[in-house]
Amino acid sequence: MIRFLTSGESHGEYLTAIIEGFPAGLKLNPDRINSMLHRRQQGYGASQRMKIELDEANIVSGIRFGETIGSPITIIIKNREWSTWSEVMHPWGEPVGKRIVTAPRPGHADLAGMIKYQRSDGRDVLERASARETAVRCAVGAICNELLIALDINIISHVVSIGEVVARNFPADYFELRRLAEMSPVRAADQEAGERMIKLIDLAKDRGETLGGIIEVLAIDCPVGLGSYVHWDRRLDARIAYAMMSIPAIKGVEIGLGFESTKQVGSKTLDAIRLRHPEIKFRHPEIKFRHP
Amino acid sequence: MIRFLTSGESHGEYLTAIIEGFPAGLKLNPDRINSMLHRRQQGYGASQRMKIELDEANIVSGIRFGETIGSPITIIIKNREWSTWSEVMHPWGEPVGKRIVTAPRPGHADLAGMIKYQRSDGRDVLERASARETAVRCAVGAICNELLIALDINIISHVVSIGEVVARNFPADYFELRRLAEMSPVRAADQEAGERMIKLIDLAKDRGETLGGIIEVLAIDCPVGLGSYVHWDRRLDARIAYAMMSIPAIKGVEIGLGFESTKQVGSKTLDAIRLRHPEIKFRHPEIKFRHP
Amino acid sequence: MIRFLTSGESHGEYLTAIIEGFPAGLKLNPDRINSMLHRRQQGYGASQRMKIELDEANIVSGIRFGETIGSPITIIIKNREWSTWSEVMHPWGEPVGKRIVTAPRPGHADLAGMIKYQRSDGRDVLERASARETAVRCAVGAICNELLIALDINIISHVVSIGEVVARNFPADYFELRRLAEMSPVRAADQEAGERMIKLIDLAKDRGETLGGIIEVLAIDCPVGLGSYVHWDRRLDARIAYAMMSIPAIKGVEIGLGFESTKQVGSKTLDAIRLRHPEIKFRHPEIKFRHP
Amino acid sequence: MIRFLTSGESHGEYLTAIIEGFPAGLKLNPDRINSMLHRRQQGYGASQRMKIELDEANIVSGIRFGETIGSPITIIIKNREWSTWSEVMHPWGEPVGKRIVTAPRPGHADLAGMIKYQRSDGRDVLERASARETAVRCAVGAICNELLIALDINIISHVVSIGEVVARNFPADYFELRRLAEMSPVRAADQEAGERMIKLIDLAKDRGETLGGIIEVLAIDCPVGLGSYVHWDRRLDARIAYAMMSIPAIKGVEIGLGFESTKQVGSKTLDAIRLRHPEIKFRHPEIKFRHP
Repeated sequence: MIRFLTSGESHGEYLTAIIEGFPAGLKLNPDRINSMLHRRQQGYGASQRMKIELDEANIVSGIRFGETIGSPITIIIKNREWSTWSEVMHPWGEPVGKRIVTAPRPGHADLAGMIKYQRSDGRDVLERASARETAVRCAVGAICNELLIALDINIISHVVSIGEVVARNFPADYFELRRLAEMSPVRAADQEAGERMIKLIDLAKDRGETLGGIIEVLAIDCPVGLGSYVHWDRRLDARIAYAMMSIPAIKGVEIGLGFESTKQVGSKTLDAIRLRHPEIKFRHPEIKFRHP
Repeated sequence: MIRFLTSGESHGEYLTAIIEGFPAGLKLNPDRINSMLHRRQQGYGASQRMKIELDEANIVSGIRFGETIGSPITIIIKNREWSTWSEVMHPWGEPVGKRIVTAPRPGHADLAGMIKYQRSDGRDVLERASARETAVRCAVGAICNELLIALDINIISHVVSIGEVVARNFPADYFELRRLAEMSPVRAADQEAGERMIKLIDLAKDRGETLGGIIEVLAIDCPVGLGSYVHWDRRLDARIAYAMMSIPAIKGVEIGLGFESTKQVGSKTLDAIRLRHPEIKFRHPEIKFRHP
Repeated sequence: MIRFLTSGESHGEYLTAIIEGFPAGLKLNPDRINSMLHRRQQGYGASQRMKIELDEANIVSGIRFGETIGSPITIIIKNREWSTWSEVMHPWGEPVGKRIVTAPRPGHADLAGMIKYQRSDGRDVLERASARETAVRCAVGAICNELLIALDINIISHVVSIGEVVARNFPADYFELRRLAEMSPVRAADQEAGERMIKLIDLAKDRGETLGGIIEVLAIDCPVGLGSYVHWDRRLDARIAYAMMSIPAIKGVEIGLGFESTKQVGSKTLDAIRLRHPEIKFRHPEIKFRHP
Repeated sequence: MIRFLTSGESHGEYLTAIIEGFPAGLKLNPDRINSMLHRRQQGYGASQRMKIELDEANIVSGIRFGETIGSPITIIIKNREWSTWSEVMHPWGEPVGKRIVTAPRPGHADLAGMIKYQRSDGRDVLERASARETAVRCAVGAICNELLIALDINIISHVVSIGEVVARNFPADYFELRRLAEMSPVRAADQEAGERMIKLIDLAKDRGETLGGIIEVLAIDCPVGLGSYVHWDRRLDARIAYAMMSIPAIKGVEIGLGFESTKQVGSKTLDAIRLRHPEIKFRHPEIKFRHP
């Protein structure tokens, strides 16, 4: 069982994670790991600053000569702007009375956190109640992704909608879909929709607004039997929803047809299975079983 | 920390749950607990059999004289039809070769489970990969709900849509909403929509079809600070999504505006906070903070 | 990962356990499982009543036709004297005011439990703060032992001392040691010491006294690499100590030489390893490595 | 619930720990925390090098201005000799072929670890299967001790024996016992025994030998009701044994009289309780209950 803890404040000196239980003997690719951190920072419309100050995941334990050795893996991401924050975020010494936050942000945990942890300076809360924490979680995910790659499992994601603009024109082939998404500044595999998304983002930026969107994540070539129906907390759907909804910006999670399935009768949502030894076939032929 | 395990097959002799970590000194109301199990069985359109064979939660440990004593709580739900299943589901003896399942159901874990656990009889899987398990989880929830009631926290749920029929006309008052939902055979607080849902269900039954729907769950009067932003796996949204998505029939979970929020600009989805000591006010005045 | 919860009061209707995560496809031997429960009850000097009212582990979920199917295993041990206790231990109704306990037993959790859980009747505590709970834990262990047997791992235990009587004369062969221990009424593999232990127990009984003792448990033919040094909570020594010390009567745990090793210099406690490919040899030749 | 993970190799760049769930609002004393790390390094007979290269716990998250804020606490201990090890322990690049270990140390996890994790270089194992890991665990403990101090709970430890030399002459007062232990180079509260221990250590060093010993740890002024008898894995004795036995050098753990109690009849080991409202008295009057 792999488990991990993350730590670090938005403007603290470091974001840190420890991953325990990772198998030994896996060669890690540091460029691929860091490219995932950079991808996180380069969404279209993200601030110019974010693009310049690229995060770097320093792996300082659990590997030797690029290979995991079984002991816990430590990831440290250094805050490139620590020098300008070290006074305000200093672990020790007397409070400096600067950058104190008294107005809790809406849509964040600031107010609840100030009450829960009895903090009069909202900064004590917002420094952790922040999407910045996902930088080190992204690094954890990138390392776990190295394991998936070694097992020939592919995780593919692309943007399905931003605001009212919905991408509808996808290729049938998953890897072509990934290729198109990687090429798009908004990670849309539908090029025409992607262009409209860019315009919408430009417009929102001009107006000082923000936008939301929907992403689709595909896990390709998973072995049969991940998770288990035998106990609620081992169900794969549940664990995916748990992880996804823990990302601050995520407000909804669907599996398969999701909410759309409620608008259809049962016979349309089922994916009939035909067993004709030795073949297993589905009505929707794009679903393939990979035997363990 | 409260933790629990559930067990039992659909047609096994018992469904069982053990709840560990429940506080001592809470008076339990057995009628209220069982009424939640019965409510689970009495959805409009559920089979006639389901309505007659009402489940009963027998609490056989962890309480004395109706009060919890701190030790683990055991719930046993006896299968009222065990006599007709005891041969097929017998724990011991030789396989009887009856009611063997070779066709895995679509939309269920049958096929994956047969491969994962190497079962040639699909019954070994479907007996657990079944919504029947939620009966005992419902009892666990009913006992936990007793604790919420003691803390003046109210959980209110109602049906928002079935198929294409959407309820849109709700009372502003939560308790009135609950009252209306309780009166409705389909648990819709919008009476007119409820009637159309009933017709839709009748029609689907005639055609041998099934329908899906959307429910809304409200937690009223929660203390500030449940869960925590400080670590991903303690986030309340994430834990709710985890629990909800573990119910086999649930394919999507939203918090607050959910997917709808992606269609709006940020300024419309935020709920501005005004702190005017000693008051905390929100733009959407129905949100109230209850100080711990 | 196998996890379990146990429940039940000493004089409650049932002791129950749910084991989750047990592998599918294991044939269980019910006689062997129950014989371990009986062995627990038949220590020399145990009350006559204990020997007559033999516990029986009813496995009511997680198996079909004697074979595990992957779903959680439920064990129920029925209290054979429930009829005489049902009034005092009734889950519901009004307190009957009988068998109330006001004097907390020394050496037990009674007093601490009464304060912690705010119970005025000590029975609410002592019913769970009791060695009776180990009956169902013994059943859990017996089922897990079935898995060990399937993996050719042998757990052997014998009594090393009772009071001041110490067994010192053991056979070198583990299975012979087990055979001798099984034959002895006090589970001593040293027959002469066993006879003195019996006399000591008889004497103590006459005086209304109780005695303690030391047992040795050997795990034979374990695969290399159980547990792990990579994180403190996965260390095998630590997990063994955790499990052993959770038995109410256990007040000390040693691994290997234990406290005795503190009286020797390091060079005497080390077990030198000689690697002469392809052999691995130890100074103490009875230690053998079994390659995975 | 407080949880933590540790990481780092003996000669890696950092030892790291993340503590999650620590309460907010606690002022930490960095000198006291570091003095516990130094005490760990200054055992009589420890190598001269160990005394010079003092560890320092850098707390880089979870606190601001000396006070915890509720977010995870990160501790980093920098390896003062990293420059001499950076080549051998480099996370990336090609193996340098230096300081390869082919002889597994007896009494350590080296051999088992090499087989479990399939490492041909024993260094991959011994770097983690090392008492060095306890440095950062010591820092975790020191931070948790700050919480105990705030709750007026005192943890006192002293050395009871080294080799055959046993300390027997202790003061009745716990704080005097602590004072004497702190003054002793071998942490023995019995001065005369302490002097003999020193001579024994000197002698062993001359002979190139090592020695073991026994320590006693006292937790004074704990509130009633820590842990719980209601489930095996919450029992305080068990959790203490789990933590203690996870320290590599610890081979035995006793609670109270421990193994000694097996040599006495029950009536001598019990600590009779007399309840004379409002007083609770024990036969052994040094045991005092502190009401929550």
